[in-house]
Amino acid sequence: MSSTETWQEKANKKRSSLYQLIPQAWRLSDLILQSLPKDCTMVPVTCGILSELDLEITEIDDIDELSCRIANGIYSAVQVTEAYCKRAAIAHQLVNCLAEILFTQALDRARSLDEYFKSTGGKTIGPLHGIPISFKDQFNIKGVETAMGYIGYLGIILDHNSILVDCILSLGAVLYVKTALPQSIMLAETRSNLLGETRNPRNRELSCGGSSGGEGALSALKGSICGFGTDIGGSVRTPAAGQESVPSVVGPISRSLGNIRTILKAITESKTWLIDPKVHNIPWREEMFQFQEGQKNKLCFGVIRFDQHVHISPPVQRAIDTAISAVRIAGHEVVEWDTSDNLQCIEILSKMYLADGGKDVETALEISGEPKQPGIYIGSKETELSVYENWQVNLARNAYAIKYLEKWNKTREITTTGRPVDGIISPVNAMPAYPTRFMISIGYTGIANLLQLSSIVLPVIRVDTVLDQINDGYRNSQIASESDQAAKNAYKGSEAFENIIVGLQIMCRRLEEEKAIAMAMVLEQALQSYQSK
Amino acid sequence: MSSTETWQEKANKKRSSLYQLIPQAWRLSDLILQSLPKDCTMVPVTCGILSELDLEITEIDDIDELSCRIANGIYSAVQVTEAYCKRAAIAHQLVNCLAEILFTQALDRARSLDEYFKSTGGKTIGPLHGIPISFKDQFNIKGVETAMGYIGYLGIILDHNSILVDCILSLGAVLYVKTALPQSIMLAETRSNLLGETRNPRNRELSCGGSSGGEGALSALKGSICGFGTDIGGSVRTPAAGQESVPSVVGPISRSLGNIRTILKAITESKTWLIDPKVHNIPWREEMFQFQEGQKNKLCFGVIRFDQHVHISPPVQRAIDTAISAVRIAGHEVVEWDTSDNLQCIEILSKMYLADGGKDVETALEISGEPKQPGIYIGSKETELSVYENWQVNLARNAYAIKYLEKWNKTREITTTGRPVDGIISPVNAMPAYPTRFMISIGYTGIANLLQLSSIVLPVIRVDTVLDQINDGYRNSQIASESDQAAKNAYKGSEAFENIIVGLQIMCRRLEEEKAIAMAMVLEQALQSYQSK
Repeated sequence: MSSTETWQEKANKKRSSLYQLIPQAWRLSDLILQSLPKDCTMVPVTCGILSELDLEITEIDDIDELSCRIANGIYSAVQVTEAYCKRAAIAHQLVNCLAEILFTQALDRARSLDEYFKSTGGKTIGPLHGIPISFKDQFNIKGVETAMGYIGYLGIILDHNSILVDCILSLGAVLYVKTALPQSIMLAETRSNLLGETRNPRNRELSCGGSSGGEGALSALKGSICGFGTDIGGSVRTPAAGQESVPSVVGPISRSLGNIRTILKAITESKTWLIDPKVHNIPWREEMFQFQEGQKNKLCFGVIRFDQHVHISPPVQRAIDTAISAVRIAGHEVVEWDTSDNLQCIEILSKMYLADGGKDVETALEISGEPKQPGIYIGSKETELSVYENWQVNLARNAYAIKYLEKWNKTREITTTGRPVDGIISPVNAMPAYPTRFMISIGYTGIANLLQLSSIVLPVIRVDTVLDQINDGYRNSQIASESDQAAKNAYKGSEAFENIIVGLQIMCRRLEEEKAIAMAMVLEQALQSYQSK
Repeated sequence: MSSTETWQEKANKKRSSLYQLIPQAWRLSDLILQSLPKDCTMVPVTCGILSELDLEITEIDDIDELSCRIANGIYSAVQVTEAYCKRAAIAHQLVNCLAEILFTQALDRARSLDEYFKSTGGKTIGPLHGIPISFKDQFNIKGVETAMGYIGYLGIILDHNSILVDCILSLGAVLYVKTALPQSIMLAETRSNLLGETRNPRNRELSCGGSSGGEGALSALKGSICGFGTDIGGSVRTPAAGQESVPSVVGPISRSLGNIRTILKAITESKTWLIDPKVHNIPWREEMFQFQEGQKNKLCFGVIRFDQHVHISPPVQRAIDTAISAVRIAGHEVVEWDTSDNLQCIEILSKMYLADGGKDVETALEISGEPKQPGIYIGSKETELSVYENWQVNLARNAYAIKYLEKWNKTREITTTGRPVDGIISPVNAMPAYPTRFMISIGYTGIANLLQLSSIVLPVIRVDTVLDQINDGYRNSQIASESDQAAKNAYKGSEAFENIIVGLQIMCRRLEEEKAIAMAMVLEQALQSYQSK
């Protein structure tokens, strides 16, 4: 790459090279592109590019089902890989969700998996044999760049895989794409000078969220059966720099809770703590699912309705109400979760995020000379802390964490289960989705980051333009903050959020990931039963 | 406390108030004090202050045995508590190891335990019912100060217990003393303006080490059956400030490996992660002891002989040689552990320790105006990092940690067990003990701190003035560093270290504490068998 190129030229070249990596036969016609509906989730099905087999394969939501069919020789790894490469290519043309395209390498890998399968008389190399897995462009893949949304990182070809990538490969998976993320990662949209904006497939006028928005958009278009994002403040729900006060975590994004369970189990059972010094030596705890499967035990859910910072909009209110009704009818208990300490969480988190005065991001931007994207949440001279001051913030967080556990344990007094609250149902955001260039608050997601709570998000309702009109309660709620005012201004009515799926979050204690998945399954089953009535 | 007092007056008052808390009948006579031997470990037995019952009780090394006798009504909690209060009082007069004396409170607590025992017809309130447990003066106990070696912290009466203190109380234990630690904690001796120096009970001309030296000295004099220290760079083997790059850890100091197992099991089984946000949700893993008890499996020990920084002195050489011979004769394998990466560990650790530029300690010193103790390892203007620079050091540590695991896993190629090395036998220090005012290196202990390895220290040999003379190998070793030169200057011969017990360290991977204890038990059994031949 010539150093005389401007950052704009470098970005254009990258975008164009991505497009060139999409075979001619997989490109959407101008006719289709010029008349795209707002909700483009059906375009992959209707555009005529996917064969019947491609559709059959990519419509299978369940990893276990897909891997079973590969293991039984019904599909070859090449067939599955080609189907997902095609569908991911279509998704990218629709919402601009990819950061790297590896179709050639993917098909080579798939061929070698098929050869292994054939030569061994039907053996697979692991539970993910032939399953395409996508990664946010923060993970390293040998032989390609990890741009992380920075033009300055282009041209640096990595000579090693991230540990998780190696792990997933050892389980038999196929790498085929990396997905888009925003400049700095500290933005709840997916927007960079490098790749532009990723839009929401269910409503292209809205943002897909972020920072793992590329993964989310690809998943919604079924261009991925499972992918990995990262989360430092609500992004998924790879370490950003060496910042350790708020540990950044990796998590899967997929179409079903069963897939989340399958993939985390497979990773955990490969004992990644033996190769990754950040992973705890904790085996997969299948027993944490027992209460879920037997349905013998009554659970108690805490519920959050207001983070003390931004009031939830009518569709999110309805999602919460629906979830509460569903789990109550299923025989579980719901109690209000006290959020009176939540503003302190936001305050501590902000100090930690901004402690470097923005130097980390500025250093990355200086390489190419590209400008900052509006709205990125990074520090300035004013927010920079000394190391000593940062230690004091850590101490404040420790004290906060102890009090939070005390609060949690004390809920034993208000439940009828004999136990403290098992997990918390919470909004993810105040709004179902956001217009672009809209700075959102981390008041609903940040507590999981600050305290390393186990967290999982699942879809609950679809925005209904009739049911989700602005109601008196929302209209008359007292403005709690600037962000609250901004959110209220942005929620002009339900119409702008048509088709959006509202997800809710289940949070359990720290290192209780299996329980969080199990409780999400309880909620999902309760919702299915409730909504079918 | 009057604010017109000088720091010297405040310190004197504290020391004198400690002495006043020792009942007249438990005070050593001038005759005894004026003719103390260098090794004073037998003085508690010979001084005439302890009754026969006191001696019988305090000579029981095993917690399980002692608690069994209490549970069977052979000893009352008051008898056990009084015996330990007396012996701790004697220890303090010998080597100045206590920071807080709580004899009155302890006897009150013991009386209430005895009443419970009596009124319930012989029930105990937990596995530590009536067992006195000591704590380094870094843990909070309600109603008294936590001076942490700072004169400025005197007079601040805490209104809550540390979480571990509450946990230990819930198991039935009795609090009776807090033990001395050095100013700043960052010193491998136990010396402060507040309490002065704690000496080594086996050789009062030497330091007892640090920063948990008060605990160590009290334990050596059998003034405690089990106590808790902390470790940020080798202190034991409570979080110091909010520094989190090198996590500070808590650990027990006791007279037997069985006690370490008993106390950690009891704490873990009380599920402390439900109340302490820093504790991982990992149950006690009894299965990690299986290989130890059955002796069925051949283990492979890595061995460290040189940290690339300071050569080990002849007694430590002999300890290593003895351990290797013992485990080999017991049927285990020993391979050399590669330490070529160890200087980088020391470099990264130093940057992390000094990152605040010394502000944390200076802030504590300013309160009283007391001066810095010579030799404390704290930062200065020159070593202060920005938060951004600290993040870069964290990244360097992450990369180092990954390579260290790779190195560890690769030892599979040189062992005959089919597994990588199970654990590492390592020196703790280059010398068996240190003269006071001698700055030591963290080259042998720091790796466990940097990478959070599981570590335990056990006694291996006693310095032998004949066997441990300076040998040619030691005399002619090439000077590796200034610390190496200083150590060589200080090791003038074995005579100065008479009676000192040389301990060695067993290190296992991160979060393998049970395995480290089990491997230490294997080494201990092997040594007993080897040394009895």
